[in-house]
Amino acid sequence: MQVSLSFFYVMSFLVAVLAFAFAAYLITWVKSQKNENAEIKRVAALISEGANAFLKKEYIALVRFAGVAAILIFVFLPSPIWQGNALENISMAIAYIVGTVLSGIAGKIGIFVATIANARTAEAAQKGIKPAFLVGFRGGAVMGLLVVGICLMGVSAVLLITGNTTCLLGFSFGASSMALFAKAGGGIFTKTADVSADLVGKVEMDIPEDDPRNPAVIADNVGDNVGDVAGMGADLFDSNVAAMTAALVMAVALDKGAGNVVNASMVFCYAAIGLIASIVGIANSRITKNGTPTGALNTSTYVATGVFLVLSAIATALFDGFRWQIWGASAVGLAVGVIIGLATDYFTDDTKPIVKKVAHASASGPAFTILSGLSYGFISCLPAMIGIAVSALAAYKLCEGLGDGYALFGISMAAVGMLSIVGTIISNDAYGPIVDNARGLTEMGGLGEGPLEVTDELDSAGNTVKAVTKGFAIGAAGLTVISMLGAYLSEVNAAAAEMGKELLTGFDVMNPTVFFGILIGAAVPAVFSAMLMLGVDKNAQRMVDEIHRQFREIKGLREGKAQADYNRCIEIATTGALHELLPAGLFTIGATLVVGFIGGVSAVGGFLLGNIVSGLILSMLMSNAGGLWDNSKKYVEAGHEGGKGSDAHHAAVVGDTVGDPFKDTAGPSINTQITVVSLVASLMSTLFLAFSIF
Amino acid sequence: MQVSLSFFYVMSFLVAVLAFAFAAYLITWVKSQKNENAEIKRVAALISEGANAFLKKEYIALVRFAGVAAILIFVFLPSPIWQGNALENISMAIAYIVGTVLSGIAGKIGIFVATIANARTAEAAQKGIKPAFLVGFRGGAVMGLLVVGICLMGVSAVLLITGNTTCLLGFSFGASSMALFAKAGGGIFTKTADVSADLVGKVEMDIPEDDPRNPAVIADNVGDNVGDVAGMGADLFDSNVAAMTAALVMAVALDKGAGNVVNASMVFCYAAIGLIASIVGIANSRITKNGTPTGALNTSTYVATGVFLVLSAIATALFDGFRWQIWGASAVGLAVGVIIGLATDYFTDDTKPIVKKVAHASASGPAFTILSGLSYGFISCLPAMIGIAVSALAAYKLCEGLGDGYALFGISMAAVGMLSIVGTIISNDAYGPIVDNARGLTEMGGLGEGPLEVTDELDSAGNTVKAVTKGFAIGAAGLTVISMLGAYLSEVNAAAAEMGKELLTGFDVMNPTVFFGILIGAAVPAVFSAMLMLGVDKNAQRMVDEIHRQFREIKGLREGKAQADYNRCIEIATTGALHELLPAGLFTIGATLVVGFIGGVSAVGGFLLGNIVSGLILSMLMSNAGGLWDNSKKYVEAGHEGGKGSDAHHAAVVGDTVGDPFKDTAGPSINTQITVVSLVASLMSTLFLAFSIF
Repeated sequence: MQVSLSFFYVMSFLVAVLAFAFAAYLITWVKSQKNENAEIKRVAALISEGANAFLKKEYIALVRFAGVAAILIFVFLPSPIWQGNALENISMAIAYIVGTVLSGIAGKIGIFVATIANARTAEAAQKGIKPAFLVGFRGGAVMGLLVVGICLMGVSAVLLITGNTTCLLGFSFGASSMALFAKAGGGIFTKTADVSADLVGKVEMDIPEDDPRNPAVIADNVGDNVGDVAGMGADLFDSNVAAMTAALVMAVALDKGAGNVVNASMVFCYAAIGLIASIVGIANSRITKNGTPTGALNTSTYVATGVFLVLSAIATALFDGFRWQIWGASAVGLAVGVIIGLATDYFTDDTKPIVKKVAHASASGPAFTILSGLSYGFISCLPAMIGIAVSALAAYKLCEGLGDGYALFGISMAAVGMLSIVGTIISNDAYGPIVDNARGLTEMGGLGEGPLEVTDELDSAGNTVKAVTKGFAIGAAGLTVISMLGAYLSEVNAAAAEMGKELLTGFDVMNPTVFFGILIGAAVPAVFSAMLMLGVDKNAQRMVDEIHRQFREIKGLREGKAQADYNRCIEIATTGALHELLPAGLFTIGATLVVGFIGGVSAVGGFLLGNIVSGLILSMLMSNAGGLWDNSKKYVEAGHEGGKGSDAHHAAVVGDTVGDPFKDTAGPSINTQITVVSLVASLMSTLFLAFSIF
Repeated sequence: MQVSLSFFYVMSFLVAVLAFAFAAYLITWVKSQKNENAEIKRVAALISEGANAFLKKEYIALVRFAGVAAILIFVFLPSPIWQGNALENISMAIAYIVGTVLSGIAGKIGIFVATIANARTAEAAQKGIKPAFLVGFRGGAVMGLLVVGICLMGVSAVLLITGNTTCLLGFSFGASSMALFAKAGGGIFTKTADVSADLVGKVEMDIPEDDPRNPAVIADNVGDNVGDVAGMGADLFDSNVAAMTAALVMAVALDKGAGNVVNASMVFCYAAIGLIASIVGIANSRITKNGTPTGALNTSTYVATGVFLVLSAIATALFDGFRWQIWGASAVGLAVGVIIGLATDYFTDDTKPIVKKVAHASASGPAFTILSGLSYGFISCLPAMIGIAVSALAAYKLCEGLGDGYALFGISMAAVGMLSIVGTIISNDAYGPIVDNARGLTEMGGLGEGPLEVTDELDSAGNTVKAVTKGFAIGAAGLTVISMLGAYLSEVNAAAAEMGKELLTGFDVMNPTVFFGILIGAAVPAVFSAMLMLGVDKNAQRMVDEIHRQFREIKGLREGKAQADYNRCIEIATTGALHELLPAGLFTIGATLVVGFIGGVSAVGGFLLGNIVSGLILSMLMSNAGGLWDNSKKYVEAGHEGGKGSDAHHAAVVGDTVGDPFKDTAGPSINTQITVVSLVASLMSTLFLAFSIF
């Protein structure tokens, strides 16, 4: 069949609309579920209010930041306004703003659905595990469908309207800068609240978790939503946009050379098919007879994978010019994504040996919990690194025969393939905090033992699946940033051609400016994650002071006769999170600019590479060690190694506390940091070429 | 003055002999010090016996390993024996064996002197801090002088006899494989003993540190010597040989092109001058009126630095063809070494804010000790990475004008410059375990409060200076491995030219085989260090079982009426250490071979780069965080944050226990791992070129 790009634009829009329609149906369905318990309603409303209060503050901070960024973009990008074309600069600035706004909308909707679904999941738990699972999962699925639909529609619209891939980079940068706020800011918020609630509640005053007397308890529940739901949504929106952008930058350049539109068409076609596959996967996820919630969640992933592979193969056969090699690259990417997910699972699943070993080490004291957790965290990097390395090499080798530039395009299509079923991944991921909240509400609403058991089982499935989805997200980020490196090279050479400068063929590590960049770039994720972790620490200190103040000044609070000032705690966590996030974000962007204006485009190429390499290692270490400690603690609490209250339990709690900012603040934020840096580099390439010292 | 290479060979030999003579004088001087206390004599003899027992076992293991390696080298290197020149293969195998033997001798001598000096320092402490310092320092200086003298003589002899830089690589590989055993094996030994002695002694049975009833107490003291003295000596011998080798590989290639011997002469000349500078520095180190031991130790570093800069400048002016740019590169390297040392000091010195912050965080519990220590450990990577990056770039830019290949030679000379005063560095480093042992002996010998205060102050100075010397060692390793990458490229191209294959111009990160190598290479130090840490854990488990057995089976041991079987503990620590080390070492070498035979020489280039980048970050994180936790614990013990026995103290102890294998096992072993991998890559380059899949 003849290929026409308009056909695929229409296809992308239609599929996105289909996803929106399905999401709308799921929202209506979730809303129609029972929601009658007054206490649950009250607490759920508090959580919803708190989350929205955080979002509002965050969005106000972002508007300021984005305003400044948009003005800078307008003045300087893609080339200084006094040298270039003002219209291009305006389009770029607008694309940037649209990127931030769409990402913001995705986060907002996610919170909206999650805070509706949590209460209804809790009540559905009274009827049994199957209906409760369905409410929780469908709530999460709304997030998955909307994020991917918005991404597909946004990317198509920006390219259709501007016809310019540099504007797409601006759009992607908008999504990334929002994701940095959402993921890192939300991550600091959620751990601030979690840590301080535990420190004062459990350790000092000996009152149970989720006790309404604790002024930080609502902030803690809010944190689950703003960190995991909104943050993760913005993060994966960002990865998905970045993957499509990187692929399109190369596809459009190849198409221009060949005088056709085949490659860009393939990108849109596969992305749209991925969304269809996710819809099918989501629609088919339910607990079967004798099935478990974990099985149901994994089913959606496997169904979506199968559907994507089949449909994309049919499309490749159907359309003229679609190449099987590129299909192969996408398929390899997707397959490796699944493998990385399974490998991650091995290190964090409590039915597998590693979790048991760490739990056993805890019996010798907290130092051994930490040492063994860190050690296995380090080892867990190996399969994922091999997976990313092999898939990049395979994609390259598959596609290099197609002509110059196809090899790198193949890698970018492996990333697109790996992220094709991201709709299902996000659904599974968003399911986690919903059922986690539902568990808290079940307890606070006094629904009794039966529903509590149900929500416990749902929650545990969420934790297990989270490991797989995180592995997936990291693998995809790894491949995406490799293709971002390719996109950066394209941008540099486009600018160099225009300025009549020598073109770069690549980044040779024996070139000392490249090496200079590599070393500095490698240090950045280390410092960035340290700043976030220290930020959690400082912020928690402020919140602990506030909790102490409330217990001191509000009479009757300790006895449960007066209500705590929940909002004050939420406010402190919010303000502090944004306050602590800013230096880390600015440090990262600043380091890129310093390296660029000192060492020039080659140094920045090295900088990106160093950043990717150490970023991948550190983010995997932190995510996996964090998950491992969390599950080891749960394993001990389930009665092993002495059970609750034993020395092993105390040690395991220390591991979990260290793991919290690892896995929920620093680890996942590194992905966003890498994307932000890659995009800043691509966007600034013209300026680095023109104004660097060396 | 006209340059003749023979002149510099003679100069190198003479300077080495001078160093040996000075060392012999110092040994005699140390031996002549008072050694009369019977109990001290008895315990010192036990420590000495234990250390020698470990060395014997280690050397037997090494002989087996080296035997296999030498046979493989003889058959396959530099080219398969059936294709090449059998004489070359024999020289290579012999050079390899000589490398291992010399490195072994350096370790053995170090242990010999250290176990003599510890008892005499303890007794000298009765006369005051100045004489005690002098005994400890001069004991350490013997090690520094011998290591550097042997290195200079060995490198000169191998090049003079074989005239072949590839044989030099074989020699360097011998030193490295020995260093891997000594550093990683010794590191596992020392932490096994330390951890199990503390676990049973302090935690379970509540008996004090260094109590002779504890069957692990002698093993613990032995550990200080085999881990810190012998291990560190082998490690720095290896770095020094590697730095000279890398520089000479490039210098000889440049000289061949130009038809002279200027560059090789410069390498020997600067190395010899460095040793002279170290001798002067060592001779001038003593506690001045109102001075402190820390001041005295630092004086030796600064004096040596100054002497090296002046003498090398004079030599550069004196000899025809010596270039100021290359002198500049060495000077930059040395200056940056000092700066990195000072930056490291900032993060680990207990008079500076970071240590206090971590101590303060400990008041909130062990999780916060860990989180803040790791965070500052991550941040501490930044100055060193910037220092290495800037010095590499500066050296390159200084020298690139001299002609093709000079830029990389400049970087290697920056490494030679940074390591020029390594004699002083080793002296200061070896001083640490000597005075640490002396403190234990003072206590066991019952010398009373006065001498104990003296040895405490000496010990604390050792800890502070250790941070600086470690920073130095890591910086030097960083620069050395960059030049090893250059040496690898030289080797590959020499082989390629012989085989009529295309020459490599470098390693482009956009080349997917390079990228493939980078990702795998980056994972290796993470996995390697995790294997070592888990090895300590497993080994400590065995030793704890043995200690329990002794208390159970030896009647009267608990009451101090029977003697513990110290040797059995030493044996377990020894066997276990070598047993746990082997898989980690084989994994590293195996990964290099797999990547090389799959991806070929380009993939190996990437592999080395990834290895360097993540290795530098991880080794700095581990060394600095470990030092930071150690000093934070001491700071709390000095009465801050509640002092001994407080919650903050318990938390700080957890940090210190995590930090022990970080800073004494895994962190410093990563340096050796990087060197081993670089040398394996260089040696195997011909085989990778001939037999790789891609």
